[in-house]
Amino acid sequence: MDLSSQRDIKAYMHALGRSAREAARTMARAETAVKNRALEAMAAAIERERARLLAENAKDVEAARAKGLDPALIDRLTLTDKGIASMADGLRQIAQLPDPVGEILDLRYRPSGIRVGRMRVPLGVIGIIYEARPNVTADAAGLCLKAGNAAILRGGSEAIRSNQAIAALVHEGLEAAGLPRAAVQVVEITDRAAVGELITMKEYVDVIVPRGGKSLIERISAEARIPVIKHLDGVCHVYIDERADVEKAIRIADNAKTQRYGTCNTMETLLVARAIAPTVLPRLARIYLDKGVELRGCEESRKLVPEMKPATEEDWYAEYLAPILAVRVVEGLDQAIDHIARYGSQHTDAIVTEDYTRAMRFLREVDSSSVMVNASTRFADGYEYGLGAEIGISTDKLHARGPVGLEGLTSLKFVVLGDGHVRQS
Amino acid sequence: MDLSSQRDIKAYMHALGRSAREAARTMARAETAVKNRALEAMAAAIERERARLLAENAKDVEAARAKGLDPALIDRLTLTDKGIASMADGLRQIAQLPDPVGEILDLRYRPSGIRVGRMRVPLGVIGIIYEARPNVTADAAGLCLKAGNAAILRGGSEAIRSNQAIAALVHEGLEAAGLPRAAVQVVEITDRAAVGELITMKEYVDVIVPRGGKSLIERISAEARIPVIKHLDGVCHVYIDERADVEKAIRIADNAKTQRYGTCNTMETLLVARAIAPTVLPRLARIYLDKGVELRGCEESRKLVPEMKPATEEDWYAEYLAPILAVRVVEGLDQAIDHIARYGSQHTDAIVTEDYTRAMRFLREVDSSSVMVNASTRFADGYEYGLGAEIGISTDKLHARGPVGLEGLTSLKFVVLGDGHVRQS
Repeated sequence: MDLSSQRDIKAYMHALGRSAREAARTMARAETAVKNRALEAMAAAIERERARLLAENAKDVEAARAKGLDPALIDRLTLTDKGIASMADGLRQIAQLPDPVGEILDLRYRPSGIRVGRMRVPLGVIGIIYEARPNVTADAAGLCLKAGNAAILRGGSEAIRSNQAIAALVHEGLEAAGLPRAAVQVVEITDRAAVGELITMKEYVDVIVPRGGKSLIERISAEARIPVIKHLDGVCHVYIDERADVEKAIRIADNAKTQRYGTCNTMETLLVARAIAPTVLPRLARIYLDKGVELRGCEESRKLVPEMKPATEEDWYAEYLAPILAVRVVEGLDQAIDHIARYGSQHTDAIVTEDYTRAMRFLREVDSSSVMVNASTRFADGYEYGLGAEIGISTDKLHARGPVGLEGLTSLKFVVLGDGHVRQS
Repeated sequence: MDLSSQRDIKAYMHALGRSAREAARTMARAETAVKNRALEAMAAAIERERARLLAENAKDVEAARAKGLDPALIDRLTLTDKGIASMADGLRQIAQLPDPVGEILDLRYRPSGIRVGRMRVPLGVIGIIYEARPNVTADAAGLCLKAGNAAILRGGSEAIRSNQAIAALVHEGLEAAGLPRAAVQVVEITDRAAVGELITMKEYVDVIVPRGGKSLIERISAEARIPVIKHLDGVCHVYIDERADVEKAIRIADNAKTQRYGTCNTMETLLVARAIAPTVLPRLARIYLDKGVELRGCEESRKLVPEMKPATEEDWYAEYLAPILAVRVVEGLDQAIDHIARYGSQHTDAIVTEDYTRAMRFLREVDSSSVMVNASTRFADGYEYGLGAEIGISTDKLHARGPVGLEGLTSLKFVVLGDGHVRQS
């Protein structure tokens, strides 16, 4: 869709916002079975229209190629048979998750005679901004819907035809269940000004979830006038304590770095206590170097592993998302905690130790969204944590922290049950 | 303190921020007994130095009078023997509340073998901005401290001497317990630019809590670059349903309006179902008019109660904080919910009904921080809800919603306990 002026874009986005706000009220009271029926119908429609989705996606891919876009972007943009099957599966999995809405917690009598509890309710309207990954369209729509919200989705412009095709099937599913189409709306204008409107129209949107690279997220959080659920960096650490079990340490440090290089929960800096460094570092270095991981170490590490390149100050801040690892020998737990506080990104950090007191101190004192003892940082994930699915990971401290599942798309309001009670003082 | 330039103010505020960040790490690991000892010592110091507090406060009051400031402001500024006693009591009450920090929720085994749970931890550094009410200084300091946070307090400039005197006693308490003085810092420059720095220095401050009038809170939320816990308006409703018990309805509607006029949880608009209006409205109007409450009604209400003035569209949006009440006759529950969605401020709304289904619908569909059945809106309060104390009320949907107590000054991080576990896929 082409809109000629800034004013048109604003009017278009506000119309989306108004419809979303209206739909959100219907969604908030939709029964679990109805929402699940919509999800199942979407999954079925996606499977049935596989050929059409592939055809629309092929046009997006062709246009992206013609523009000479980055192969990695084209790779993420491309839908395959398998990708379509897993989109449908994802929606069915969401249907199987327990409905978070309506749960009442801690309903208790107070001395005044009223009962007070908290009820889980949808957030309202959620704006999702993501890159050219069509699968996110189905996934985000499904999660928002199950949590009783309306969603406004703004995917990367390179995926516009794919997203519209998916949106049509999402709408089919909503209608099959008798739910309003406006419960999921895809922004059809590719102009960036649409994002500017989305993240500032407070009256219609309750929360923004940006998914994508750091520059996208930084821009959005700087400009948004609506709360944003986000994480910027995943500078994750594993600290191998002097009292670590060596075999566990090696297994965890290997897995945290090499199981996947490009994920936000991959370890980027390895910290090793001085006393155990001669035992673990050379063995670990062998594993990393055999797998083609470039090592950048502090002076002390380099004495133990001469193949390491020297690390600079910037390396301690780096999220490589690549087969590169920064390595530092530290005095012990205090210095490790200090290092993480200074250079970390409050995402995920792990200690390997058999020492009870140090494990407890690490858990309490490291101020990250996930803190682990004797486990790989790679576990920081909605599925692994049992949330069923995740819309993103938050490194903010307010509201959701860590992997954000259905619960993170809801809020708790107070409910008060009385029988004519009034306040005396 | 006088600082000559914008640059000096920035340097001063950043120095406070750095010290607070440092102190927050110590506070996060402070034991419950140590924090309680500090609170008790503060309370004792405040009682002991009553005369000094009154003397310093008298200087503030004198200066405010000389400037010809609003009597209501001077009233809030003035400390009395009773006010000082209740400051000390408040600190002792906070000492008696359970420590929220360190609690681990839902620690469960996952199929991978790891155990995953959530641990309650302090937010970090909390910036509190409030008007010239010296008692807030002690109260906010106590709550932040108990929840393991560091606080930067910026009270109204008219109370600067009182606040500094209280801060000295707070510091005495911190030191008596071996805690860092920087855990509670009072901004000593009265220039407004100091607030501008406080609400934008992301690296040092985790959350801002503004307490005060609407214009203060609006300005702060517009300019803050840090999450804000706030509520702007309390346009609270009571809806008397057709199936209400008349006696309960009258008791609740009376209490919600007249028990106190100036609080945010006071009813500002009364909605009455058409079928019951002839029964309840004339009786209620008599009560209100006898108490001197001005009534502004819709046309239908005015037919039943000729003494009512006509309500305008603005009356439905108004937070009077005064003996004025807007009254509207509605068709029934649906129209009441629509009215609240359109004109309300998502603070506190109540239904009076004996009908089960309508009560359940009201609880679920009204999107406010507190939703009540057969109880007065005046109950929306941290003490009444059993939170022990409150730092404010939030009408935002993310993070804390409704009265914010100690728990609202903490966040939940994920903890993962393994035994050498690594991720397989």
